[in-house]
Amino acid sequence: MTILETIKGPHDLKALPEADLARLPGEIREFLVHAVARTGGHLGPNLGVVELTVALHRVFDSPTDRIVWDTGHQSYVHKLLTGRQDFSKLRGKGGLSGYPCREESEHDIVENSHASTALGWADGLAKARRVRGEDGHVVAVIGDGALTGGMAWEALNNIAAAKDRPLIIVVNDNERSYAPTIGGLAHHLAALRTTDGYERMLAWGKDVLQRTPVVGGTVYDALHGAKKGFKDAFAPQGLFEDLGLKYLGPIDGHDLGAVDSALRRAKRFGGPVLVHCLTEKGRGYAPALDHEEDHFHSVGVMDPLTCAPLTPAAPSWTSVFGDEMVRIGEEREDVVALTAAMLHPVGLGRFAERFPDRVWDVGIAEQHAAVCAAGLATGGLHPVVAVYATFLNRAFDQLLMDVALHRCGVTFVLDRAGVTGTDGPSHNGMWDLSVLQVVPGLRIAAPRDAGQLRAQLREAVAVDDAPTLLRFPKEAAGPEVPAVGRAGAMDVLRADDRPEVLLVSVGVMAPVCLRAAELLEARGIGCTVVDPRWVKPVDPELAPLAARHRLVAVVEDNSRAAGVGSAVALALGDAEVDVPVRRFGIPEQFLAHAKRAEVLADIGLTPVEIAGRIGASLAAAERSGAGPTAPSVQGES
Amino acid sequence: MTILETIKGPHDLKALPEADLARLPGEIREFLVHAVARTGGHLGPNLGVVELTVALHRVFDSPTDRIVWDTGHQSYVHKLLTGRQDFSKLRGKGGLSGYPCREESEHDIVENSHASTALGWADGLAKARRVRGEDGHVVAVIGDGALTGGMAWEALNNIAAAKDRPLIIVVNDNERSYAPTIGGLAHHLAALRTTDGYERMLAWGKDVLQRTPVVGGTVYDALHGAKKGFKDAFAPQGLFEDLGLKYLGPIDGHDLGAVDSALRRAKRFGGPVLVHCLTEKGRGYAPALDHEEDHFHSVGVMDPLTCAPLTPAAPSWTSVFGDEMVRIGEEREDVVALTAAMLHPVGLGRFAERFPDRVWDVGIAEQHAAVCAAGLATGGLHPVVAVYATFLNRAFDQLLMDVALHRCGVTFVLDRAGVTGTDGPSHNGMWDLSVLQVVPGLRIAAPRDAGQLRAQLREAVAVDDAPTLLRFPKEAAGPEVPAVGRAGAMDVLRADDRPEVLLVSVGVMAPVCLRAAELLEARGIGCTVVDPRWVKPVDPELAPLAARHRLVAVVEDNSRAAGVGSAVALALGDAEVDVPVRRFGIPEQFLAHAKRAEVLADIGLTPVEIAGRIGASLAAAERSGAGPTAPSVQGES
Repeated sequence: MTILETIKGPHDLKALPEADLARLPGEIREFLVHAVARTGGHLGPNLGVVELTVALHRVFDSPTDRIVWDTGHQSYVHKLLTGRQDFSKLRGKGGLSGYPCREESEHDIVENSHASTALGWADGLAKARRVRGEDGHVVAVIGDGALTGGMAWEALNNIAAAKDRPLIIVVNDNERSYAPTIGGLAHHLAALRTTDGYERMLAWGKDVLQRTPVVGGTVYDALHGAKKGFKDAFAPQGLFEDLGLKYLGPIDGHDLGAVDSALRRAKRFGGPVLVHCLTEKGRGYAPALDHEEDHFHSVGVMDPLTCAPLTPAAPSWTSVFGDEMVRIGEEREDVVALTAAMLHPVGLGRFAERFPDRVWDVGIAEQHAAVCAAGLATGGLHPVVAVYATFLNRAFDQLLMDVALHRCGVTFVLDRAGVTGTDGPSHNGMWDLSVLQVVPGLRIAAPRDAGQLRAQLREAVAVDDAPTLLRFPKEAAGPEVPAVGRAGAMDVLRADDRPEVLLVSVGVMAPVCLRAAELLEARGIGCTVVDPRWVKPVDPELAPLAARHRLVAVVEDNSRAAGVGSAVALALGDAEVDVPVRRFGIPEQFLAHAKRAEVLADIGLTPVEIAGRIGASLAAAERSGAGPTAPSVQGES
Repeated sequence: MTILETIKGPHDLKALPEADLARLPGEIREFLVHAVARTGGHLGPNLGVVELTVALHRVFDSPTDRIVWDTGHQSYVHKLLTGRQDFSKLRGKGGLSGYPCREESEHDIVENSHASTALGWADGLAKARRVRGEDGHVVAVIGDGALTGGMAWEALNNIAAAKDRPLIIVVNDNERSYAPTIGGLAHHLAALRTTDGYERMLAWGKDVLQRTPVVGGTVYDALHGAKKGFKDAFAPQGLFEDLGLKYLGPIDGHDLGAVDSALRRAKRFGGPVLVHCLTEKGRGYAPALDHEEDHFHSVGVMDPLTCAPLTPAAPSWTSVFGDEMVRIGEEREDVVALTAAMLHPVGLGRFAERFPDRVWDVGIAEQHAAVCAAGLATGGLHPVVAVYATFLNRAFDQLLMDVALHRCGVTFVLDRAGVTGTDGPSHNGMWDLSVLQVVPGLRIAAPRDAGQLRAQLREAVAVDDAPTLLRFPKEAAGPEVPAVGRAGAMDVLRADDRPEVLLVSVGVMAPVCLRAAELLEARGIGCTVVDPRWVKPVDPELAPLAARHRLVAVVEDNSRAAGVGSAVALALGDAEVDVPVRRFGIPEQFLAHAKRAEVLADIGLTPVEIAGRIGASLAAAERSGAGPTAPSVQGES
């Protein structure tokens, strides 16, 4: 039995003899490498926080003390130390979540993994403690990358204002988010990292002051004696102390004793304090350390020794986008690109190599990406903002007020749109087609295949007086889905003369819709399938086309509420075309982690379910003698 | 003719002789007080930036140099100096906007007035200049209050990273946003304000070092001689210099010469530089300076001498909410409140007086308000987050991911929902009922009168396992609208046995709907009016009720796209009730400034328009012999 296996919870960890404690980090790393290689998951970040997590659970008493993990993908070690060592189905259906999960453990608090939230949570938890007169500490663990997000600043500003609440901020500084952390903050952390302000002052001072004799020694000696007052008055306090936060650090995050001792000091302090821990992403696993791009931030299933991927790679939507961006960049000097700390994951790596002066990583700062893009567009360029769909929600106000109100030609590209699956509820990109419906002038494309993505990206960057947006999923791009005709600007994917069902397919739902049409055909029900390509605004030809059918069904990989189905229903109503509309999409719920295909099956986004429900709708109408009626408006045929 | 009247643009300002220049600020203040008293508008902030704006337009060459105003309500002086001196219809239909407006002038760039955006815009504009090889400076003017917003931090972090772009940040530090600026940043600005780091060091140093003799004088003398190197190595650099930004200040923002000279120094610097200007909100106008609450941040029409309001005050929705909060606070110790720098405007002033330890002003930081609320709720309290409807967009991701995903009992209260009017496109609260449709578990109330607001606020804070939200408009609360019956949990406001029109009225649209029903009645068309009270989720009784009618119309003071009308149509479709649905609301456009009633008339949200369009819909259906059909499902009567 390993030492790790004897740890059923923080209590066991606290009781561990020194000798065993020294061996534990190695065992944990061994476990992590093999477990994550088997399922895929976040490896590098967790290898970096082994000692830190051990120390946290020895110094603090979770769950009485509250430990909040920012971007919870760094919580694997925390799981191992709080009774969760079965990683066999990590991120899989029924297995452990890849993030904290309140259903798994009372030690988990914040489940979502959008960055920079931990400090705000901690502020609220600490304030609640104070109002309720409860004891206990609140600890937030946040990466240096997440500190580039505006929410972290808002929270620091609030935390610093309340001196009497015991709140410990642990900055896990590995100089990276996904990629190296950017900006002024990174420079400042680097300054703190190499030598603290007082030491810097002394280094300079020694040289000058030691040459200056005074009675009984040198000025240096005199000042050194008055260290305390001198330090307070002179030494650069650093950004955090400028805000009024006590700063401890920098601490070697892989020296268990040093981290333990710093955390105990912070615990005794009684007010808000920041502990600056230096860690190494991928620590203890050479292949991760050697991986320049992201130190194995997140890996697929792989061989733990050779690191060879065990699942075949197919051309991804991301790479199709990335390659086309390079081609567009060659042709148009005014096209530039922005990423929020995810240059490679959103496919901009090649663009950055080719045009290093035309791409900016703004940090984990989607708000800034959108506003900066408005400025870039107003300055005469055409920015492409590439983000994961779920993270665009952070920039909704800026897309609306800065980009759309100012009619800026900015193209947003949403990767990981729709059901993404294994990352769980906070990573599904299932909201964009709904929340963006209200944005005046915004045009939205949902390409159904790689060829469409390339074509629509070009159509998008050609629009210079309004925002445009493309969305595509995480999976590998499937085979091309050819059009068999056109209706307005819409592609007809399947034509049928019978006035029964019109299926409106959104983006990658095309193969699902075509298969559903075949199933309906087998039941003698005629079904035409169209892909509007641009789903916002609704194509004006859709209403007359719908008027020639008994039922319209809209299928989208997005919330059923307020999405493309809603927009279609509104357009039909406005045209006084009262054909019944049925909407297929994601029900109003958060989706637990599982593979994309499993999730789609669970929520009924399959050809069988769609065809079945359409058939039932038609049958019910026939039984009632009304409902889905004969065409109410006779469009030209 | 006044000197001001001779200024047709920045060129005239630059040519002004010293003597005239000295008189200009007084003239501008005189003009502002009288002009704004006549129309209402933002007074205090503009009185504070007179000298600053004059200096900006003398030192820089707008529009070649780009001047970006954060929260554009501080741009009145800028308007006066750039050819816009007719303030007679300020904020009125066809008059000058209360914010920068690109249609008014080439000197205006950013139109919206959501705070903390200017630095991001400036970053983008400066980057575009660099890519295009253009000359010229970019200047962003931002208040100390707006620096509490996360976007400002994200932008500072990016701006600091690019040393070679001439970008000037002017911090207009009046120690306030609407209310006094909060948090660690405010403390730091105060430190910078009273004495800069070097002076502080010298003050301490003199005392100690002058007592220390060295060859040829004292240590103080020796160090003073080595000032440059000493200052760089020793002096507290301040937060901004920690980030790598050159800092100039503090400057007396009412000393025209000092501001002029600081801006010229900043202009010569060639890289990003921050100029810290100290100003006084309401400067030069005693009634404003004496006004503790907000220094006349924004005023209504008033007598400029007595400051007596010239429009009668009616009990506002805000005060109804504020009063009920105090009563609830008395009854429940766990109810706490949060505001984003708007304690009084959102009606929390009395609650704060009564329960000072249970309310927090988080700064202009809606994201933090929402996340902190999630923490407070998880910690056992019930937070009420009160914000203007338009500003909630900033916290959409946090409401979804932190509050809703974690099923936190947080109540959001949206003041200024719907068409607000004179503040123009960025202040209308017309998006909430749409973007929030996707949020799982969220319950939304739209009270139709003051009594309903009180009742529904109590219903909302009683929900402890899911977020709730109330929304109400800016205007004075109108008379009570009594219910004549119930259908499910819905209030029936007008009952009619005939199976013609079912009007679903959302919140304050009730009187409009009742009047529309009367107009239909006059044409022989029966019309039932219901108010669902809670508009999300859709009441399950709505579908069977709709099934007994030929047409359903939904009327909401919100975007037509994706709003309550969409949710109703979805619910009917799911119940296989295919009664035609017509949606009345705000079309997909940004609304120019005008009075609320004028805007509603322009977009057809009036009883006459609604009744007319419903009548036309019914008539068209009759002509075509189909369309709005007889009831498709026979509900129980």
